[in-house]
Amino acid sequence: MELPRYAGLLRGRHFLNTNDFTREEIEQVLEAARDLRTKFRSRIPTPYLQGKTLFMLFYNRSLRTRNSFEAGIFQLGGHAHFLSPQDVYTPTLPEDMVPYQTESIADVARVLSRYGDAIAIRIYGDAAKWHIGRGHRVVREFAKWSSIPVLNMEDDVYHPFQALADIMAITDVAPNPRGKKFVVSYAYSGGLKPLAVPQSCVLIGTMFGMDVVLAHPPGFELEDHVIKAAKENADRYGGSFEIVHDMREAFEGADFVYPKAWSPKGFFPPYNGKVDKEGAVEYQNKFKHWICTQELMDLTNKGKYMHCGPADRGQEVTDDVIDNKEYSLYFEQAENRLHVQKAVMVMTMGG
Amino acid sequence: MELPRYAGLLRGRHFLNTNDFTREEIEQVLEAARDLRTKFRSRIPTPYLQGKTLFMLFYNRSLRTRNSFEAGIFQLGGHAHFLSPQDVYTPTLPEDMVPYQTESIADVARVLSRYGDAIAIRIYGDAAKWHIGRGHRVVREFAKWSSIPVLNMEDDVYHPFQALADIMAITDVAPNPRGKKFVVSYAYSGGLKPLAVPQSCVLIGTMFGMDVVLAHPPGFELEDHVIKAAKENADRYGGSFEIVHDMREAFEGADFVYPKAWSPKGFFPPYNGKVDKEGAVEYQNKFKHWICTQELMDLTNKGKYMHCGPADRGQEVTDDVIDNKEYSLYFEQAENRLHVQKAVMVMTMGG
Amino acid sequence: MELPRYAGLLRGRHFLNTNDFTREEIEQVLEAARDLRTKFRSRIPTPYLQGKTLFMLFYNRSLRTRNSFEAGIFQLGGHAHFLSPQDVYTPTLPEDMVPYQTESIADVARVLSRYGDAIAIRIYGDAAKWHIGRGHRVVREFAKWSSIPVLNMEDDVYHPFQALADIMAITDVAPNPRGKKFVVSYAYSGGLKPLAVPQSCVLIGTMFGMDVVLAHPPGFELEDHVIKAAKENADRYGGSFEIVHDMREAFEGADFVYPKAWSPKGFFPPYNGKVDKEGAVEYQNKFKHWICTQELMDLTNKGKYMHCGPADRGQEVTDDVIDNKEYSLYFEQAENRLHVQKAVMVMTMGG
Repeated sequence: MELPRYAGLLRGRHFLNTNDFTREEIEQVLEAARDLRTKFRSRIPTPYLQGKTLFMLFYNRSLRTRNSFEAGIFQLGGHAHFLSPQDVYTPTLPEDMVPYQTESIADVARVLSRYGDAIAIRIYGDAAKWHIGRGHRVVREFAKWSSIPVLNMEDDVYHPFQALADIMAITDVAPNPRGKKFVVSYAYSGGLKPLAVPQSCVLIGTMFGMDVVLAHPPGFELEDHVIKAAKENADRYGGSFEIVHDMREAFEGADFVYPKAWSPKGFFPPYNGKVDKEGAVEYQNKFKHWICTQELMDLTNKGKYMHCGPADRGQEVTDDVIDNKEYSLYFEQAENRLHVQKAVMVMTMGG
Repeated sequence: MELPRYAGLLRGRHFLNTNDFTREEIEQVLEAARDLRTKFRSRIPTPYLQGKTLFMLFYNRSLRTRNSFEAGIFQLGGHAHFLSPQDVYTPTLPEDMVPYQTESIADVARVLSRYGDAIAIRIYGDAAKWHIGRGHRVVREFAKWSSIPVLNMEDDVYHPFQALADIMAITDVAPNPRGKKFVVSYAYSGGLKPLAVPQSCVLIGTMFGMDVVLAHPPGFELEDHVIKAAKENADRYGGSFEIVHDMREAFEGADFVYPKAWSPKGFFPPYNGKVDKEGAVEYQNKFKHWICTQELMDLTNKGKYMHCGPADRGQEVTDDVIDNKEYSLYFEQAENRLHVQKAVMVMTMGG
Repeated sequence: MELPRYAGLLRGRHFLNTNDFTREEIEQVLEAARDLRTKFRSRIPTPYLQGKTLFMLFYNRSLRTRNSFEAGIFQLGGHAHFLSPQDVYTPTLPEDMVPYQTESIADVARVLSRYGDAIAIRIYGDAAKWHIGRGHRVVREFAKWSSIPVLNMEDDVYHPFQALADIMAITDVAPNPRGKKFVVSYAYSGGLKPLAVPQSCVLIGTMFGMDVVLAHPPGFELEDHVIKAAKENADRYGGSFEIVHDMREAFEGADFVYPKAWSPKGFFPPYNGKVDKEGAVEYQNKFKHWICTQELMDLTNKGKYMHCGPADRGQEVTDDVIDNKEYSLYFEQAENRLHVQKAVMVMTMGG
């Protein structure tokens, strides 16, 4: 069996944030993902990771991520272990160790590195104690000690594989997305949600030279370091990055809209002295009118609707919008997760 | 590798109830199951579903079902995902949605359809809130939205794979079972149990032209639509269907007896205004004498003992009966689960 | 594909305790493990258990054991089912049956024997109700009823695969370990721990003719039947077995030291009338000075540090010792778990 030329192209690299990679590298990922998608649909076997093992460590539950990684590595000839913290001694940062219940990430990462070929981690929200950035530190700690690639399946700062799936969906519609208006907008939900998706969205949009508009009510600001990185991307790649506070204004003439809930960071450490979930929900509840409806879609430039899933129907979006077969990319984005993850696995674990 | 001629014979069909299929189709399943059994025992590889993924969604725990499906798809070259509701956002009917904890079945089914090749579901009892028929509605809702086959691993109305394993065990003993007396009898247990097994039993027995006798105390009636379907089967396939209320009377001259507990439907919606578990158990406790003993077996026509497992030893049956190597089909039925499930998977997912 | 000559050499045997095997058989396991390690590191495929299924039943959580077994069988072409008791009807000894919640081990073992190729079990501590020997009885009960090999993934008496990994690490350093001083020492932890590791350690050390010194405070005696077996091993294989009660004395001139916590058996049945966890912890807490430090390592004959993992850092051992790359075998032992388990699986399940 001949390996495709992208196998091992990112050999041994961790995949924690799209912005750790060059635009050229991300484009190679998309090219690989499209090759794998074609082969998947034509049922052409792709045993590029024969005999390789992926350890999936889920501190949070998941539908898309778990099933797309597990099916993906299997379609590549490998095998995934589904690990939930209650089944192992919870791998933990040094300052959070609880004797006889936790095991240091340093030890877990080094042991797993002896048995298999990559470690994938999901951790945010309660699992990261709602101290924003703590989940990302767990992922970085794994990367520090692991001698095999670490893959970020969503932490409390980034969701890089979602961003890859999203830019794949966008470039399917607009092969050269430069100058296209991409709106990443807050949308209401009563639930608590991490910043990872909007933050990764603005980073990938600006990396591809899009005119990215971030729309949110006051209090829903993204983290400063992300805003800074998005602006730098816009400068480097010839796009633009703008922040507005009105959903209608943002949607005007948009080519792609991504209305998605996240929680206001000012209620959580390190931006607040304590974790204030009730305060966050109460504050969110003032913005129930931030819902994506057909009326809003009518303002766009025949724009495409996007969401990472699961969407809170009736809160973030109305059923008629998300289920609209003309312009909703919802299920394409979900499917692309499979293809981009297979691509990154073949590139980092293969060859 | 050459595929057997039964691969893909039911391509894309859901498998929710044996009565959704013709007698001829069920016989093809049994023929395929016997071919797969022979090859399994001879260790002849059967990679007929190479690279295919089965999503197994267990709302209830399981020994036989989980292990036979997971081992089965692996023996066919595929891979099963073991999904428990706590690991995903629980897939839920529209009227039961809980924001941020559940995800609509419509969305889950459509996403999984993008990643793999079949969805298998088990849901009854507490997981279906003891509203009889609600578990089956969950399975039907998956089937409605899924573009890949949905397999019923037992809901609160049907257990079709058990029925297939049972008729395989019966036809191993009696290749032409027409006219053989098949007793599906209530047997005592203190636990709450769904109607699925007895209902699927009377349907498969009548489909094969057997003289089916359903025996139970008053209050343990099966659902009307099942009784009606069993009678129609008996008419169509030249057997008979009769209901009696005495275990001894039923066992007289029987060729196969299947004494098995289920709970009286009159204590549960929609047959009752509320879920009354205590009432059901209290009522069940009046029928401790409905136990399968050697004395009862002596009344049969050298009849075979059957049970789907797990049997409540000392309640439904005595140890000497279930462990009798001459006439107990208990472990054969359990083993057949593997073979019939592999057969249906190859027929619906293969080719 | 040609099978190695060790495939099937122990065909059908259970692997419950190293002392159930001859020294020659254990040496064959190590030889097979080294062959598999070489091939693993050279990425030479080893599909010696193609299509075979391992059922892993974890009553306790695990990092090393679960991941090394699951990755190991996959690297051999097979597949492992991860089963936790809450996902099945808990397989239970006859005297502990709870109707509708448990299923007899006799039934579970016989059903699984129909579907796959081996059953691996972990059970100790709370899962075995802290009645020492009860976990081992569960494992023996499985072995009694199973017609496929049963593998002991650690019970409350033995941890045979750890012992194999340990002797592999020792014989990597000292190919002929006869006469080498091997210290199995108590080390402090505030947690409750089974006797399995130290008991399997003294058995494997004496089987290999080492001068085994067991060191512990009063009250931490191993079980009499193990002491007796260790002495018999020492007599048979030309080594020695001695018990001391001072950590410094034990470490003097040692070639290998294995400082590891276990709990005093006198606080648990059958050595006590009731389970007294608080009493055990309180008693353990008197021995916080039993910690492996660099000062103690300086007393050895350039000795190697060993531990089965997870180590309680700061209690059993200081970080500088366990992370010392010159003399710590910690990660080698962990890695060897993979190789020895693959070896035993190929020998018992293969051919």
